Amino acid sequence: MDTVIKGGRIVTATETYEADIGIEKGQIALLGRNLEGDETIDAKGMFVLPGGIDPHTHLELPFMGTVSADDFRTGTIAAACGGTTTIIDFAIQGKGQTLREALEIWLKKAEGKASVDYGFHVAIGAMDDARMAEMGELVRDGVSSFKIFMAYKGTFMVDDETLFRALLRAREVGALITVHAENGDVLNYLINKHVAEGKKEPIWHALSHPPEAEAEATHRAIVLAGLAGAPIYFVHMSAAEALEALKAGRAKGFKVFGETCPQYLLFSIEKYSEPDFEGAKYVMSPPLREKGNQEALWQGLAGGDLQAVGTDHCPFNFAGQKEMGRDNFAAIPNGMPGIETRLPLIYHFGVNGGRFSINRFVELVSTGPARLFGLLPRKGTIAIGADADLVIWDPNKKHKLTRENLHMNVDYSPYEDITVKGYPALVMQRGEVIVRENQFVGQVGAGEFLRRAPVRL
Amino acid sequence: MDTVIKGGRIVTATETYEADIGIEKGQIALLGRNLEGDETIDAKGMFVLPGGIDPHTHLELPFMGTVSADDFRTGTIAAACGGTTTIIDFAIQGKGQTLREALEIWLKKAEGKASVDYGFHVAIGAMDDARMAEMGELVRDGVSSFKIFMAYKGTFMVDDETLFRALLRAREVGALITVHAENGDVLNYLINKHVAEGKKEPIWHALSHPPEAEAEATHRAIVLAGLAGAPIYFVHMSAAEALEALKAGRAKGFKVFGETCPQYLLFSIEKYSEPDFEGAKYVMSPPLREKGNQEALWQGLAGGDLQAVGTDHCPFNFAGQKEMGRDNFAAIPNGMPGIETRLPLIYHFGVNGGRFSINRFVELVSTGPARLFGLLPRKGTIAIGADADLVIWDPNKKHKLTRENLHMNVDYSPYEDITVKGYPALVMQRGEVIVRENQFVGQVGAGEFLRRAPVRL
Amino acid sequence: MDTVIKGGRIVTATETYEADIGIEKGQIALLGRNLEGDETIDAKGMFVLPGGIDPHTHLELPFMGTVSADDFRTGTIAAACGGTTTIIDFAIQGKGQTLREALEIWLKKAEGKASVDYGFHVAIGAMDDARMAEMGELVRDGVSSFKIFMAYKGTFMVDDETLFRALLRAREVGALITVHAENGDVLNYLINKHVAEGKKEPIWHALSHPPEAEAEATHRAIVLAGLAGAPIYFVHMSAAEALEALKAGRAKGFKVFGETCPQYLLFSIEKYSEPDFEGAKYVMSPPLREKGNQEALWQGLAGGDLQAVGTDHCPFNFAGQKEMGRDNFAAIPNGMPGIETRLPLIYHFGVNGGRFSINRFVELVSTGPARLFGLLPRKGTIAIGADADLVIWDPNKKHKLTRENLHMNVDYSPYEDITVKGYPALVMQRGEVIVRENQFVGQVGAGEFLRRAPVRL
Amino acid sequence: MDTVIKGGRIVTATETYEADIGIEKGQIALLGRNLEGDETIDAKGMFVLPGGIDPHTHLELPFMGTVSADDFRTGTIAAACGGTTTIIDFAIQGKGQTLREALEIWLKKAEGKASVDYGFHVAIGAMDDARMAEMGELVRDGVSSFKIFMAYKGTFMVDDETLFRALLRAREVGALITVHAENGDVLNYLINKHVAEGKKEPIWHALSHPPEAEAEATHRAIVLAGLAGAPIYFVHMSAAEALEALKAGRAKGFKVFGETCPQYLLFSIEKYSEPDFEGAKYVMSPPLREKGNQEALWQGLAGGDLQAVGTDHCPFNFAGQKEMGRDNFAAIPNGMPGIETRLPLIYHFGVNGGRFSINRFVELVSTGPARLFGLLPRKGTIAIGADADLVIWDPNKKHKLTRENLHMNVDYSPYEDITVKGYPALVMQRGEVIVRENQFVGQVGAGEFLRRAPVRL
Repeated sequence: MDTVIKGGRIVTATETYEADIGIEKGQIALLGRNLEGDETIDAKGMFVLPGGIDPHTHLELPFMGTVSADDFRTGTIAAACGGTTTIIDFAIQGKGQTLREALEIWLKKAEGKASVDYGFHVAIGAMDDARMAEMGELVRDGVSSFKIFMAYKGTFMVDDETLFRALLRAREVGALITVHAENGDVLNYLINKHVAEGKKEPIWHALSHPPEAEAEATHRAIVLAGLAGAPIYFVHMSAAEALEALKAGRAKGFKVFGETCPQYLLFSIEKYSEPDFEGAKYVMSPPLREKGNQEALWQGLAGGDLQAVGTDHCPFNFAGQKEMGRDNFAAIPNGMPGIETRLPLIYHFGVNGGRFSINRFVELVSTGPARLFGLLPRKGTIAIGADADLVIWDPNKKHKLTRENLHMNVDYSPYEDITVKGYPALVMQRGEVIVRENQFVGQVGAGEFLRRAPVRL
Repeated sequence: MDTVIKGGRIVTATETYEADIGIEKGQIALLGRNLEGDETIDAKGMFVLPGGIDPHTHLELPFMGTVSADDFRTGTIAAACGGTTTIIDFAIQGKGQTLREALEIWLKKAEGKASVDYGFHVAIGAMDDARMAEMGELVRDGVSSFKIFMAYKGTFMVDDETLFRALLRAREVGALITVHAENGDVLNYLINKHVAEGKKEPIWHALSHPPEAEAEATHRAIVLAGLAGAPIYFVHMSAAEALEALKAGRAKGFKVFGETCPQYLLFSIEKYSEPDFEGAKYVMSPPLREKGNQEALWQGLAGGDLQAVGTDHCPFNFAGQKEMGRDNFAAIPNGMPGIETRLPLIYHFGVNGGRFSINRFVELVSTGPARLFGLLPRKGTIAIGADADLVIWDPNKKHKLTRENLHMNVDYSPYEDITVKGYPALVMQRGEVIVRENQFVGQVGAGEFLRRAPVRL
Repeated sequence: MDTVIKGGRIVTATETYEADIGIEKGQIALLGRNLEGDETIDAKGMFVLPGGIDPHTHLELPFMGTVSADDFRTGTIAAACGGTTTIIDFAIQGKGQTLREALEIWLKKAEGKASVDYGFHVAIGAMDDARMAEMGELVRDGVSSFKIFMAYKGTFMVDDETLFRALLRAREVGALITVHAENGDVLNYLINKHVAEGKKEPIWHALSHPPEAEAEATHRAIVLAGLAGAPIYFVHMSAAEALEALKAGRAKGFKVFGETCPQYLLFSIEKYSEPDFEGAKYVMSPPLREKGNQEALWQGLAGGDLQAVGTDHCPFNFAGQKEMGRDNFAAIPNGMPGIETRLPLIYHFGVNGGRFSINRFVELVSTGPARLFGLLPRKGTIAIGADADLVIWDPNKKHKLTRENLHMNVDYSPYEDITVKGYPALVMQRGEVIVRENQFVGQVGAGEFLRRAPVRL
Repeated sequence: MDTVIKGGRIVTATETYEADIGIEKGQIALLGRNLEGDETIDAKGMFVLPGGIDPHTHLELPFMGTVSADDFRTGTIAAACGGTTTIIDFAIQGKGQTLREALEIWLKKAEGKASVDYGFHVAIGAMDDARMAEMGELVRDGVSSFKIFMAYKGTFMVDDETLFRALLRAREVGALITVHAENGDVLNYLINKHVAEGKKEPIWHALSHPPEAEAEATHRAIVLAGLAGAPIYFVHMSAAEALEALKAGRAKGFKVFGETCPQYLLFSIEKYSEPDFEGAKYVMSPPLREKGNQEALWQGLAGGDLQAVGTDHCPFNFAGQKEMGRDNFAAIPNGMPGIETRLPLIYHFGVNGGRFSINRFVELVSTGPARLFGLLPRKGTIAIGADADLVIWDPNKKHKLTRENLHMNVDYSPYEDITVKGYPALVMQRGEVIVRENQFVGQVGAGEFLRRAPVRL
């Protein structure tokens, strides 16, 4: 064995047990006790988890007249430091572009910079017959998920027919359609109305994105998926009502899946009323909701109705970026940092908080995304033959989530006041140690593009 | 290594991968490739599964004036031959008995006869203060689940207050209450009415047990569990309406779990009208339902609303036993054989039938019951340190489920006409081969009583 | 015409229009304009409503070691003063009594004392075959509704089989089963537990009657009614969750009907914590609920899911009666006054409050109860041939609901602080003026027993 | 009195009673017994109903390259013969037109030809700021309802923002938005797909309009109405799933109302497979559904979830019109005759069929539409001051609904084989007899345009 991780408690989505892990050529090669290797890493008193998989990031995204603050270098280093060894970012089809052209642009952004492994969802802007054909080719090339926006009228939003065609095609070729579900027409009316009425503070962002608009779009997309016989995945679910729609769809036997993000589990709409324009830090779509939604989302994670935790990591600096909307909420770049804090927050509030087991935690931050997006069993579990993407998790390590203690390239931390218990002690990707003592020690650009398997759920 | 299973595809509830399994002292000691051992078992082309766990059997049950036809010897041999290496049977508290007395009686029945490992749920007949105390003691002794009957008015049925007290106590001591949910008052009225009207053929058994009575009792028990803050487990769910109640309970965040059985997935009410009193073979409670319920139950298994498949194995010979009710359905002993056919049927119709993955199959017949009843990770998975209870599963082996091809001690097979594809090639318990080529080759009585952990779901 | 009511705006459940009403021999004989009669009553600027019908009163009820404080004389005078000209009280079958014996006892109580017309529901204590037969006879004699208690374990509570038999028989004979729906087993456990723990203040009454227990019993009774194919009517609904069950039943096509009472619409659980044992004034079953339930109940009335407002009038003096439970909530006689304040409260908070139209108000306090209990069109509407039971309603009259301003024979008013706008200016029964200027001017004992028609809903 | 109708049983939405009706100057002036008048009409043994109100007709509608076959002359004569004395037709805003221009065009069509009273809903094609203003003006002029199409992509369909704006404005000005709810994007895709695949028979019309598309649009519109705080009315509901959405909306306290039509209650999808292109007779949108939907719709009418029965009368001759689509279902003009047969069919199958009372029948075909569309109490009831629009209904009269026995200007009857029991014996509008013995005897063009009141539900 090249390396042996000794004495840890291995945690998978199913069970927890003590064993050593033998690693050879970047893969998990042996599980047992008293194993020997060239190098030994002590994991006594620690958990050993499969590396986190973040199914929802936006690095270097050009958006609302600026660009998200983390590029593939800084963003993936931060990811690694937080225990995430795989990300799936979004390549967005621009006007007049083919799906492949969009993919190529994003592949170029990542190449030589990404320090964890990565894949892409391709966001569909139009779904003509040529795009229908292209979708199959992309799946064959390892891009087996796509994104549809039902919001952002005038830019990303597509009509129901486009969504319906995408779902029908996805079913044929083995792809999963992911959806940003908000009724863009309702949002557009409310944003314009509020701005016209001079209601321009950050709170009006939230009041222009009512939870009913999310629930409605979620319901609508589920109906279309049901008609198409296709699975569907909802990103960044924030509203209890939308989760109700998802449950109702599952109850009909439809294959509907949902992701939420730490910010929706931990924060509520009050944030927007913080003084000194601080609310802008939390402006994103969908917005933070009334407090009552948090419990519903936690229950969704615990009870099985939600299958994944992503971040929608899309950071903008307060200075210079968020400030673009000081006079008008509609000009605040939408997005928040989170790629680094996902595992610690979900572990701390979920597992320590008694909401679910550590196995469910692993399912939500790693195994679930791997299964849904064609990466299992190469990623997302600890089993013979899997990539040795591993996190040695110190359940007793306390870490305050201040800006200084984090690696994301953004001038604030939304979790400044929060101290979590439970943090990565060491992170390994394909057998190489890339994080030690909260420092990235890997090789920049060593992340690989992942050709994912077709999705048949 | 004492033994190595080589070249199989290991299947857990989470993933599927190729590896050898090294076994030492009855436990799984090593997972890897190219392992060596004293003995080698070739599993090339085969799946290797954790041994099945049947959470619902009735061996040697005195019931309705007779005794179920399989004792702990014949029943557990049949279980083993079908790939089940652990059963949880029921010790039933008689009038005037303590819970422990009931347990002792059943322990004696099993001792020296059981050839697979076994545990007991204790069925509660009364819940006075002494029983409340006793419940905690039994949990400490490894009996962490109990049973409540809401049906069988006049014999097993208890009132809601008893159920409520049991749930409250279960929460305190870490036990899981399992429930037979049918409204016994409704059943009692209908049975008496039909018999009084001379409606005595087997079909009237079904018509005296309407699905609404199951759904109602399920709903009621869930409300009580919610009030008590206790988890609850429904045995042998048969009706889509009852499953709806369960889903609604989960949607409220209650911890409700459900089991169904192969007979409810595969058969429907038409069976009761078979000529020559053949319908009596399927008389059990709840009865077979209208065909539409089957699809709902399959969806429940696939989608996560049902967590386990049990058998409610409670066989009575047609000759001499079922015949006791030739003139009156109410005198037909309730029950059906099934302990041996569970894995083959669920694999064939579930996995081959495209309803769910082989990983979900493992979850339903092994990992799920292990998790719910305090046996994981000793049982129910393939991981370092677990008991080497393993099934080498031949996905290509065809087997016709005739009486001659099975080992249960009963004079008919309900599945006589069914040929499944996929069957155990070899079964191992704690490292010992106990079934080879559909023959029990183990030692009678080698099964051990399992002290189960408290249940905290 | 004997009498003409001139110039009022007539209000029925359907429409509002101006017309005079000609009355002859106690009945409405002519509707038109510019009518002439021997006597003329000016109703200019007033509404003319059909007399109120209270489907739920308990006069002279022996209960919990005492007797409700209003007898048929004082109670019906108070009813009349509040605009109610018909009540339906409850005759309760005692141990060993026949249904008819119970009825006879209550008929005797009312005779010569009742000053408004009256009928009886008979409360069923047991449902053997003789009672089944008797039920049909009583319907033929004009008693077409019965009552079942699912609460009060040990006294009134019956088992599900009794309820089921009653429903089945009701369907045959054209009767309506009314139900007090709370799970008596749960209540019994909680009451005993709380008392044993020394939790004896009035608030523990509420905490011993959780809303889930009401919702569960409501659901259960609806399932039994659906199985029986019988209509069912829930008295005094207090919990939003129970209303949800009712809606779900209606959505399945079952004939389920619901009543609520002013106290559940206006008061909440905080009342029980009032100092000086004042909370005892509101002790009744079901208890006052969390505030959020009120809005759900108002919506039920407005939207059609609830069909009637009753009072459950069952007054006990604070001094000497409520005080019996000073040391133990379980000894506080359950009940509250309300027979006089129903119309004013519902008009004030419902119609003035913008929750529903005056036509819906008439439906809820008069036409609905008449239709459900076999009194329409003799009672409950303004139409040719109907009894001239009329209320001239002054929409501008303000009235403070203090004890002094009311006629009920009880030493407190629960609505002491409330001033309503809209009150009876004059009340007429079968053509005779019985209330003028808030004074009873009729003849004591002139109320007639009403033989109601069979109920076919 | 000018006229007295003697001896009939008057039926309103609330009650049934015997009385004579005195009529003066076209209005109901007196209700009583033994009334005298200049003219007497004998109604012994008959019911007297308020004239029917059809809230959904399309006379002289230019559509799909042709014009609906009944103009305001033939259509209203047919309406009258079937017991309908008021219709509300649709004025449809064309491209570039104002709402008022649309109204003027339709007013001109009706003037001098309509033989029953009439109003218009105005169908909105665009909802810019000028239209927002115009809406209020139209309401002030007596047009208090508008129509939105969510189907017919490319022609009538508007986007969600238009619907949302219309709802918000409707709430301000007291209007009711009526909606054709089908997801036009889904329909558009399926129609094009099926035509492209050569699937052009009438059955493909139905298969291009799945019930899920209706249910989805219904749900979506309800969400928007809830957000807007506005009432909403769904025309021609055909699918049980859509009705479920409506119930769910009502359960949330939203003011949602629904209409269905006789064809959806009586016919099912099998009709489209009739030989010789006969299926074309039933091509309309939404299409006929699977048989199971009928029972759900009947329950909706009986239980209160649906409030009105309209016809969507939009007839096209089989010869020359329906035949335009012989080679392509997409070219078959959508629509069916029904203006004359509504009351007889609903009475026969509803009241005779035991599904609901005659009072509910009156509510559904007359009082309900009157209340919803600002006509009560002038229309829709029998009360002093109301227009004497009356139908003397012979409950024993049998009538076969063949083309020869009907007056609609179309070359087929969809109900050719049906003989109903119960038919108008005489129809009166504003005191004038207009139909006698199934012959129109009134004056052509005597129908009046109805200025309806604002709608506040």
